Amino acid sequence: MKILPDSLDQITQQFSRFPGIGKKTAQRMAFQLLDWNREDVQHLGEVIIQSMDKLRHCSVCNLITEADPCPVCLDTRRDDSLLCIVEDSKDVVAIEETSRFNGKYHILGGVLSPLDGIGPDQLNIKTLHARMDDVQEIIIAMNPSVEGETTSLYLAKILQSRKIKITRLARGIPSGGDLEYIDGVTLGRALDDRHELK
Amino acid sequence: MKILPDSLDQITQQFSRFPGIGKKTAQRMAFQLLDWNREDVQHLGEVIIQSMDKLRHCSVCNLITEADPCPVCLDTRRDDSLLCIVEDSKDVVAIEETSRFNGKYHILGGVLSPLDGIGPDQLNIKTLHARMDDVQEIIIAMNPSVEGETTSLYLAKILQSRKIKITRLARGIPSGGDLEYIDGVTLGRALDDRHELK
Repeated sequence: MKILPDSLDQITQQFSRFPGIGKKTAQRMAFQLLDWNREDVQHLGEVIIQSMDKLRHCSVCNLITEADPCPVCLDTRRDDSLLCIVEDSKDVVAIEETSRFNGKYHILGGVLSPLDGIGPDQLNIKTLHARMDDVQEIIIAMNPSVEGETTSLYLAKILQSRKIKITRLARGIPSGGDLEYIDGVTLGRALDDRHELK
Repeated sequence: MKILPDSLDQITQQFSRFPGIGKKTAQRMAFQLLDWNREDVQHLGEVIIQSMDKLRHCSVCNLITEADPCPVCLDTRRDDSLLCIVEDSKDVVAIEETSRFNGKYHILGGVLSPLDGIGPDQLNIKTLHARMDDVQEIIIAMNPSVEGETTSLYLAKILQSRKIKITRLARGIPSGGDLEYIDGVTLGRALDDRHELK
């Protein structure tokens, strides 16, 4: 027998489309919605619908933004000679939080993944070439996954003809990590890339 | 420097109001929304807004429903002499999935929690008395928490004057559990309530 009403199922189904939201969590969210007051629910629905009209990708760097070009690209205090290539906008937030980078970004919008049908043409790579005039160093900051690795190598290859420095993020043991629990690949990498204590 | 646009922050903030959705998950959901097509986002927003008008609580048992009384209360094949008291509508779904219960439900809408200001008057207890005429057995099916326990004892106390059987769910080791990893309280309970192998 069907216990829960259709409209609750519909919300549950919608919520469970998000990555990382399973059926149980989606259902818990749907139930929670019933405890909210009317205005809050209305507001959530409206904010979601409005997002479609307000948000776009920056035509220069591909960052999620309301204004095009985005505030990062427009910021004259940033160093144009330093370009950091990342997978998506979330990575920009993570790097900004370190306060260690003051250059510009280029967001690929994904990584190469032939099995999923994602090749260079599906990524924001073409516009990269147009931005290279002032660039002296490119930092390739892909996620440490197989696809990220492949994408890094691909980018390094297509950029090598230009006389610019190409770097990538250091690999090694994470801060606060415990050697005992760190995976072999990471630890091996940390050993290979060991450097002198000064 | 503020990297992400306000409307993305707004969605993130709205999503993180749900229990179990942290800031990171909420942000991932907001980003995901940008990859959906326009119709899907519109639909999600509308489904949320419509939920307010469609969903209500059953006036008999307090279950979430679109029609009042709810289909469970209207179902004549169900045994009116058996009443199961649960905390919320999700618990009804869980019990229905076992296919072991064919009575009616009564949803309290919470548990007694004096520290949060939730006393008997905040729960759906008054309407319980009006339903007792045909009832021969009450199954108290609270969650195994301190508040659930308190609520069970309270219910047992206010119902004891009526000549009906009052039962509660069995406690013990869960199916598929591993004795080594089961907490002491549960294992202690399972020992206390041990029964003869027949």
